[in-house]
Amino acid sequence: MTGSRNPMAKIPPLEKGGYFNLDGIFATGDNNMKLHEKPIMPKGFLCTSLNCGIKEEGQDLSLFYSEERASAAGVFTRSHFAGAPVIVGREILKNGALRAVIVNSRVSNVGTGESGIQNARRMGSALGLELGIPAEEVIMSSTGVIAMPLPIEKIEAGIRGIEEGLTGDPVKGAEGIMTTDTYPKALSLSVGDAVITIVGKGSGMIEPNMATMLVYIFTDAKIDAGDLDRMLRGSVDISFNMLSVDTDTSTSDTCIAMANGLAGEVDEASFAEALTFGCVEMTKMLARDGEGASKLLTAEIKGAASRDEARFIARAMINSPLVKTMAYGADPNIGRVLMVLGKCFDCEIKRERVRIAVNGSPVYANEERIDFNEEKVRALLAGDRVAISVELGVGSHEALAYGCDLTEGYIEENAAYYSS
Amino acid sequence: MTGSRNPMAKIPPLEKGGYFNLDGIFATGDNNMKLHEKPIMPKGFLCTSLNCGIKEEGQDLSLFYSEERASAAGVFTRSHFAGAPVIVGREILKNGALRAVIVNSRVSNVGTGESGIQNARRMGSALGLELGIPAEEVIMSSTGVIAMPLPIEKIEAGIRGIEEGLTGDPVKGAEGIMTTDTYPKALSLSVGDAVITIVGKGSGMIEPNMATMLVYIFTDAKIDAGDLDRMLRGSVDISFNMLSVDTDTSTSDTCIAMANGLAGEVDEASFAEALTFGCVEMTKMLARDGEGASKLLTAEIKGAASRDEARFIARAMINSPLVKTMAYGADPNIGRVLMVLGKCFDCEIKRERVRIAVNGSPVYANEERIDFNEEKVRALLAGDRVAISVELGVGSHEALAYGCDLTEGYIEENAAYYSS
Repeated sequence: MTGSRNPMAKIPPLEKGGYFNLDGIFATGDNNMKLHEKPIMPKGFLCTSLNCGIKEEGQDLSLFYSEERASAAGVFTRSHFAGAPVIVGREILKNGALRAVIVNSRVSNVGTGESGIQNARRMGSALGLELGIPAEEVIMSSTGVIAMPLPIEKIEAGIRGIEEGLTGDPVKGAEGIMTTDTYPKALSLSVGDAVITIVGKGSGMIEPNMATMLVYIFTDAKIDAGDLDRMLRGSVDISFNMLSVDTDTSTSDTCIAMANGLAGEVDEASFAEALTFGCVEMTKMLARDGEGASKLLTAEIKGAASRDEARFIARAMINSPLVKTMAYGADPNIGRVLMVLGKCFDCEIKRERVRIAVNGSPVYANEERIDFNEEKVRALLAGDRVAISVELGVGSHEALAYGCDLTEGYIEENAAYYSS
Repeated sequence: MTGSRNPMAKIPPLEKGGYFNLDGIFATGDNNMKLHEKPIMPKGFLCTSLNCGIKEEGQDLSLFYSEERASAAGVFTRSHFAGAPVIVGREILKNGALRAVIVNSRVSNVGTGESGIQNARRMGSALGLELGIPAEEVIMSSTGVIAMPLPIEKIEAGIRGIEEGLTGDPVKGAEGIMTTDTYPKALSLSVGDAVITIVGKGSGMIEPNMATMLVYIFTDAKIDAGDLDRMLRGSVDISFNMLSVDTDTSTSDTCIAMANGLAGEVDEASFAEALTFGCVEMTKMLARDGEGASKLLTAEIKGAASRDEARFIARAMINSPLVKTMAYGADPNIGRVLMVLGKCFDCEIKRERVRIAVNGSPVYANEERIDFNEEKVRALLAGDRVAISVELGVGSHEALAYGCDLTEGYIEENAAYYSS
């Protein structure tokens, strides 16, 4: 934060490996990792989606399918009210192997009692029967309104013949899992001979904890279930777990990874780095498309006393309604950044050491605003990306959190979500 | 939650004494406590406000004055970035005596370094000189934009002759401390021969912790500073400290109580009860007038494993953007209440024991919605008060938190707060 014009230009390596820049983490570049311009399904994976009648229009049922039995790992919401598909899904993943994922949108099958559990199992059984694969290798997800009964008959009818639509385009699968998302989200990257494809949905009720909204990761790399689980948790920890749209944690958060091995072995370090890169990119897509969002908001906290404190403060920053509305209105009210630091009561913060930058420009140090100019700060906040960087100067830990601004669009979508 | 049609009709005593009903705490009624229809200043207290040129229009400088030296106590924000008036005010209150409070609005004198401290002292010195009272018996507050220099010359000019406007109407004093408040807030109640008058302002950046936004309490009861401090902390703990408009904690939160003794001794228990009643009423006024708010939102949590858990969950409920927008839109999406309980990861919550009522009507029990009817729930949510009651059934602790809905008005006010 001192010397260089752009205080974020030189940033030391993170504990987790990899580097942060203003756009998030990027790979070290030694592994031939390549982000595809257009996403594809990895070898041996196919997907599709259709309308089975839960939504009045648009796709509401998606299938992701592996021709070979795939190693599998997953992380789920920590909610006390985890949905029926999460409860059943945790059991299914104990085997570490999957052939397919079946997902419906609009109704979440949460808060639906014992019949909800039965309905989740019926989704898996119906697909297993349809595709001739073991029901215990099918995992199911449901996303949408909570405490509304799942229309299982419509889903079972939708599953009949669903395999006819299977395609290699992940965007097709992404379409059926959308709720208030404004577009289907999928990305692919190559690492060596293998491809990693990530399909996700987000939008509101997004502050995942130990998991994320719905994210499915497919790869043809050969990785056993234990390694996949370990790498997935490492990546999720600094990507989806540092995302928040509105502080509200979904009852359905699920992130599943499947590796079918068709591309053979890959270098593990390179794969882990590529997986993290992909998860961070998907995190940014989910943040930018938060309900009503017009901007990506990131908070980078450096020099914190501990990793937990860095993460806590970074999250508090991107979750503050007053910081979010400041970003939305490009209002040069940077005192709100101090307010957020101030309310992190249990974190070590020394007022006199705090330095703040917005999109790379220092705005506060030595307990006062620096060369404050309203128009300059307004311009810094005006783009579609607001990056708040804070150097606390009390330790060596850092974190980066991802969120979005708060606009009238959020209110509009959520004042009638059930009814619309 | 069982038996009776209205599960909130009979509620056991709180640990703190007093009782909760759907409208908050009410006194036991044995102390002749009376809420005044029109607020007045207690004997020996006067106040006024004027425009000293910080705001383009409207009052921006208020004075509250006691003709006699008063016992005094106060609680302040826990923010690491506590404003200069808070830092100086803490020192002043150590003497336990005050003659006056001087407050400006629009600029908060926070994040202003050493010159901010000097400016806070100058406010107190100028008033002491003007009124011929010791500067160390004058406490000052500033509220408004953070990290903007305090226009101290305007304030000093405004203080000259300010005593000419002194009046017994607390609403006059309340006018000069407003920021985005839509009306000046003051209430009075009598307990025995004494009067308690509470003047406050709130609106946004409201989640006080160990204190509140700006609240001044005046009484002519005779109470020493130590007792006043103890009673004030007890009252604040279950009133202002259970209030949140937007989870953001102000750097200026201040609650001051002054007792000048002119009405003589009062029964201590009766006084404490009346003080709490008054603080809860002011809390509801602040919640209802939260930025953009159209409704009062309360969350009562009962049967929790500990007092801390009850308070944590109650706050999480009134802070959830999805619950707040549900209330705003009267959207019958009560699954969002489950979502909030679900995300209180570290609290003891047993899904099968949870019962939920909205405005007294049970809506959820035994892991499922009860007799769910969209129109009925929509009607329950349609009024200007949404009371969510949750029986956790795991312990004997309870809490009540106060908030408001989240509307387009909040966004509008906060996307241009600095600039407007």
